[in-house]
Amino acid sequence: MNSVNQSLLPITAKIDEAGILHIGGCSTVDLAEKFGTPLYVYDEESIRNCCRQYKQAFAKYPKTNILFAAKAFMTSAICRIMHQEGLGLDLVSGGEIYTAVKTGFPMERTFLNGNNKSAEELEFALKAGVGRIDVDNFSEMELLDKVAKSINMKADVLLRITPGIECHTHDYIKTGHEDTKFGFDLSQLDEAVRLIKEKYLNINLVGLHAHIGSQIFETTGYIDLVGVLVDKLAEIREKFGITLTEMNMGGGLGIKYLESDDPPSIDELAEAVLGALDENLKKYNYPEPILYLEPGRSIVGTSGVTLYKAGSVKVVPEVRKYVSVDGGMADNPRPALYGAQYSAVIANKANQERTEKVTISGRFCESGDIVIRDITLPEIEFGDIICVFDTGAYNYTMSFNYNRVGRPAAVLVKDGKAEIIIRRETWEDLTACDVIPESLALPKAESKCAGCCACMG
Amino acid sequence: MNSVNQSLLPITAKIDEAGILHIGGCSTVDLAEKFGTPLYVYDEESIRNCCRQYKQAFAKYPKTNILFAAKAFMTSAICRIMHQEGLGLDLVSGGEIYTAVKTGFPMERTFLNGNNKSAEELEFALKAGVGRIDVDNFSEMELLDKVAKSINMKADVLLRITPGIECHTHDYIKTGHEDTKFGFDLSQLDEAVRLIKEKYLNINLVGLHAHIGSQIFETTGYIDLVGVLVDKLAEIREKFGITLTEMNMGGGLGIKYLESDDPPSIDELAEAVLGALDENLKKYNYPEPILYLEPGRSIVGTSGVTLYKAGSVKVVPEVRKYVSVDGGMADNPRPALYGAQYSAVIANKANQERTEKVTISGRFCESGDIVIRDITLPEIEFGDIICVFDTGAYNYTMSFNYNRVGRPAAVLVKDGKAEIIIRRETWEDLTACDVIPESLALPKAESKCAGCCACMG
Repeated sequence: MNSVNQSLLPITAKIDEAGILHIGGCSTVDLAEKFGTPLYVYDEESIRNCCRQYKQAFAKYPKTNILFAAKAFMTSAICRIMHQEGLGLDLVSGGEIYTAVKTGFPMERTFLNGNNKSAEELEFALKAGVGRIDVDNFSEMELLDKVAKSINMKADVLLRITPGIECHTHDYIKTGHEDTKFGFDLSQLDEAVRLIKEKYLNINLVGLHAHIGSQIFETTGYIDLVGVLVDKLAEIREKFGITLTEMNMGGGLGIKYLESDDPPSIDELAEAVLGALDENLKKYNYPEPILYLEPGRSIVGTSGVTLYKAGSVKVVPEVRKYVSVDGGMADNPRPALYGAQYSAVIANKANQERTEKVTISGRFCESGDIVIRDITLPEIEFGDIICVFDTGAYNYTMSFNYNRVGRPAAVLVKDGKAEIIIRRETWEDLTACDVIPESLALPKAESKCAGCCACMG
Repeated sequence: MNSVNQSLLPITAKIDEAGILHIGGCSTVDLAEKFGTPLYVYDEESIRNCCRQYKQAFAKYPKTNILFAAKAFMTSAICRIMHQEGLGLDLVSGGEIYTAVKTGFPMERTFLNGNNKSAEELEFALKAGVGRIDVDNFSEMELLDKVAKSINMKADVLLRITPGIECHTHDYIKTGHEDTKFGFDLSQLDEAVRLIKEKYLNINLVGLHAHIGSQIFETTGYIDLVGVLVDKLAEIREKFGITLTEMNMGGGLGIKYLESDDPPSIDELAEAVLGALDENLKKYNYPEPILYLEPGRSIVGTSGVTLYKAGSVKVVPEVRKYVSVDGGMADNPRPALYGAQYSAVIANKANQERTEKVTISGRFCESGDIVIRDITLPEIEFGDIICVFDTGAYNYTMSFNYNRVGRPAAVLVKDGKAEIIIRRETWEDLTACDVIPESLALPKAESKCAGCCACMG
């Protein structure tokens, strides 16, 4: 079965007779009009469909737990959807735990990851009932034990290891030592287990965790990862007489950003993983562990699009035509950060022939603020709505306020209804943390009002 | 005279007998303790000294106006300092105008730039009394005229041109057509002037504007820029009989991030610019125009440092030692965005011998979250305070909330006193825009509280 991550568009995307793009039964042109632009639009059906595909694909291994990697898209509404769909959450900070707790999320279904959690965050995680804590390195192990002891609790942990496998899209390498800040090098695992067993009595080791990369297009890396994880579980059983009962394979399944992208389906991922698991467990006669997966991008990436309004046009003779939109790198830093590429349509001309090559640039004061370089579209006019696809993952969570521009709103669309799940930032929000200390006060006479009503916002 | 941008450290930096780094008379270790980490620390004396150096260096050309490029560091307190120092502001959005207005800034000393300003922003700029508006392209010209007409005002504008000169640090190229979203191509200038003269009667053209790049280490580009600007002023006078009275040279002067960096001083910049100006004005017998400069990084870059606390340590055998701090790419995206490099010290061991090569990594869930790769420092221990230098420009304005981590506080230090100018974001701030629509409500029975006091924050 095709899965959502293999689609370029949200699964409810349709073009009406007038050539207008609809998502979740809503006209994107109406959405732009009603909620303003830039606007993140999330298709509820794509998200829920994807959650269910994960559960279904792994159903033949009932000990599977799917944790949504919140770093891909963290907001209260997404916690609620994951809650309703029966998924867990992969969290990485106090702020993410706080968000989940506030929505009433069943915290036993959450997992705390990260390479440098603070004492405060570890204590908050334990008190909030976070289900599992990942221990990433020796320093953290010592800190977690100390924190757990101080509040008389015991932490259920998985050790994160670097399995010597690194994947990014088509890149796939096996290495002896992975050059990463995350996790225990395989050569350090014995020492880590020994320390927990002998010294850190407020830590309860239940399993191993690894993560091999992101935007992955091959299942080979996952097959190898299962091999390494089961090898290590068996090795620990042999060396220490401890039969660990859990393994976490991380996330990383890719999505289709461009027509030429060809990520595996969720079914293909499940088949590869469960086949390798079965084989490796048999090899060691190891009892079936609880299996965690942490998909993020593949659940929300395709479900989200960004609507922009076309503004200024600049033609560089003999070089390029720039069409600037009202957002850019501050609501989508991925092109600037990773050279990420995207697909788009003119939402109000979605059935028109694509005749013109343009570069869609952002509004921010930086040359590198490009949304899509060299895309062929119908002729763009001032005020056209441009819909950029596959912006559901990492765009909002990495968005910022460069040039003091507020971050966009996000709406959730379903069955022709659109509801705000993130409200747009106002100018008041942007100045909310500003403080002018007394030492910078103006003499009374110099203090003046511009009389432009700006202060009334 | 040496200027602040040529220093690696804020000019008040001192190391005391115990080996503790002091800035603005404050112990950085005490600052970290009192205000928490990560913490942006701004040295007031470095900022003011730099403003004065700019004014002094250009004093022999009294028609100079120095505009601080707010995108480098925008917050209410910096507006106030620029106000007090008599500088203007180069602004690029409604949010930046709003900030300036709220602080009571003399708006006639402000300038609105940007490649895609909205009708709302243009109207706000006019009503708020922004001194000059940059017109970046034909679409914007049409829009500005329409907006000004609708409120019965006339806009004083400079046309931004792309002078065919591009500079970035040691890179310097002259091109026929610059491949950038900003400004009018030189071949379009005549048409732009003609349109304003004949058609757009609510626009009052007063001058030309250009910007050749950022983090520039050579004055040659500025000398050439003056040549192009005066050429064009003279050409417009000849062709249209209009003697424009203003020219804006943009910003871009570099700062010293590494010991090996060698930017020109502000005096050297002034000498090059004013020399070239004099020569070119004489060539055409052109009357002295008002000269604008827009320095950003060179005013605030060196004045700011970031304090982090050292946390987890991970040794990758035979490869690298990672020391993770409690911040990273979300408070300093420049290494991830540009491969930017920084200098640092251990603030509580600033006089100790540097014996160990480490990589300072951040706390965020991304492999690319590296603060400094391969720096030699004294041996780092858990809890040490790491001070990264030259983080005053673009770090705060490009900071974000990845992993739902709040943005750091900023303090202004002077004469042993530290005052908050940006308060730290709380978990409540991070969820302030979250909305859970009614359609995602839980059935009463399922709605539950984790009982961990998190909601009381």
